[in-house]
Amino acid sequence: MKPIEECTIGIVGLGLMGGAVAMALRHCGAASPDHLIACDKDEETLALALAQGVIDEGFATPGEIVKRSDFIFLCLNPSTLLKFWESWAAFFKSGALITDIAGIKVNIVAALEKNLRPDLDFIPGHPMAGSEKGGFANAGHCNFKGKNYILTPLKRNKPENLEFVKNLLYRMGFGRITETTPEEHDRKIAFTSQLCHVIAAALIDCEQDTQITRFGGGSFEDLTRIAMLNASMWSEIFIENKSELIKRIEQFEGSLDALKALIANGSAHELEARLGAVRERRTIMKG
Amino acid sequence: MKPIEECTIGIVGLGLMGGAVAMALRHCGAASPDHLIACDKDEETLALALAQGVIDEGFATPGEIVKRSDFIFLCLNPSTLLKFWESWAAFFKSGALITDIAGIKVNIVAALEKNLRPDLDFIPGHPMAGSEKGGFANAGHCNFKGKNYILTPLKRNKPENLEFVKNLLYRMGFGRITETTPEEHDRKIAFTSQLCHVIAAALIDCEQDTQITRFGGGSFEDLTRIAMLNASMWSEIFIENKSELIKRIEQFEGSLDALKALIANGSAHELEARLGAVRERRTIMKG
Repeated sequence: MKPIEECTIGIVGLGLMGGAVAMALRHCGAASPDHLIACDKDEETLALALAQGVIDEGFATPGEIVKRSDFIFLCLNPSTLLKFWESWAAFFKSGALITDIAGIKVNIVAALEKNLRPDLDFIPGHPMAGSEKGGFANAGHCNFKGKNYILTPLKRNKPENLEFVKNLLYRMGFGRITETTPEEHDRKIAFTSQLCHVIAAALIDCEQDTQITRFGGGSFEDLTRIAMLNASMWSEIFIENKSELIKRIEQFEGSLDALKALIANGSAHELEARLGAVRERRTIMKG
Repeated sequence: MKPIEECTIGIVGLGLMGGAVAMALRHCGAASPDHLIACDKDEETLALALAQGVIDEGFATPGEIVKRSDFIFLCLNPSTLLKFWESWAAFFKSGALITDIAGIKVNIVAALEKNLRPDLDFIPGHPMAGSEKGGFANAGHCNFKGKNYILTPLKRNKPENLEFVKNLLYRMGFGRITETTPEEHDRKIAFTSQLCHVIAAALIDCEQDTQITRFGGGSFEDLTRIAMLNASMWSEIFIENKSELIKRIEQFEGSLDALKALIANGSAHELEARLGAVRERRTIMKG
């Protein structure tokens, strides 16, 4: 790859994450003037991104992006990404380096790899960042500084391309990059992300009283902020990764039932010991 | 009551909350110089509070506090508060106004009211604030600004004393005061506070891998910060309020099971609709 400053950088999809990626590429100087192009089906989004100087050219369809880009960020929901790939995989510029941001990896990576031209390189990724406020207009709220990034490289990835992507991600502000398999990604993300979203949703689902926040002291607010989720995207992710997610829900239910039993039986010493172990483990966990 | 600036103010217990209360009283000017006295069984805590100028006099036992204070904040864990009350309820200064901060109210208020001298007034309260870091040394992390405060007044409370306490709490920085019954307090707090702590604890309890935070994107961290809880205090609170808390855990489990079934069955439309309703309700909830 030539230096990123000489690359035409393409972004497919200017939602919350595509917008945040574009802004980070612009602000860190990786995207040179006139080198950042993007497509989105929403005209207003394109107009806003152009007016803010976040992108240099905007298109309603991906044709120009895939044809001209040396480096491409695919910032689409999993199902949209699969449809995009079916239509456009054949038209990328030869030698292009491609990455994505999909929150599930086993199915997505398999589908894209199956249909990947030999002259292209695709490094699957997942930025561990987001915001409960969606869309390009809120992209400024999605801060990458110090955040985690997961890469699930393919065997065929060129080592220099992997280094290229990692250097760029650090430059964009991410603090810690972890390389793993799609399988491990889906297992761990089912816990750290999907299970947390299901729990937050269940907490709101089980309480009708919208005035209950008068009794909030911060915990409830922190636990349920992510219940303001993008219902369509998360339904898709939950179902796509359901075998891992259901396992995680059931592990969680096992622990919840154990704590419930200790509380119901008034087993003060055992409960205190178990909560003490929890406190200790959470304290060791960073973040 | 005379103006708060002329009152001798006593604080029983200089833990996280007693410390934060003392600091707020000092900083807002309600506690005049030489008027703020406190007791704590820990000598180092008293020395630190004196050295920082947070309190004017410190004692290892409550005798001087109950004898001299016109206004008293009882900042003790529920069980310690009950023991304190058994020993000291008879010795308060005549006409004193007393409040507490206990996180459960039905049992505590009943026990204290039963043994309350006619010449004293006791207004039960619960500041909806805290920090996962406990003790006086961390009291500065416990910010009251804009936070909720719950009062469960007794029928015998003098209206002017209730006004006195409310004015003082607003002056200390609290943003919203709700008056309710001990029963409603315990029902609602079981949801907004206790259930959230049980969930956070269960999330950590069900995962051994302390490196899992490499896969965190903020949700997991937000949902489990309160798992760094004071195991002894929370065990006590969970068990003391167990009838309400078990009901809340089971309501939550009902919603979690419903979401789990929709995910397991791949019921995309129903799942999206239910998550959409959750998003809408959480958005309406303030905070």
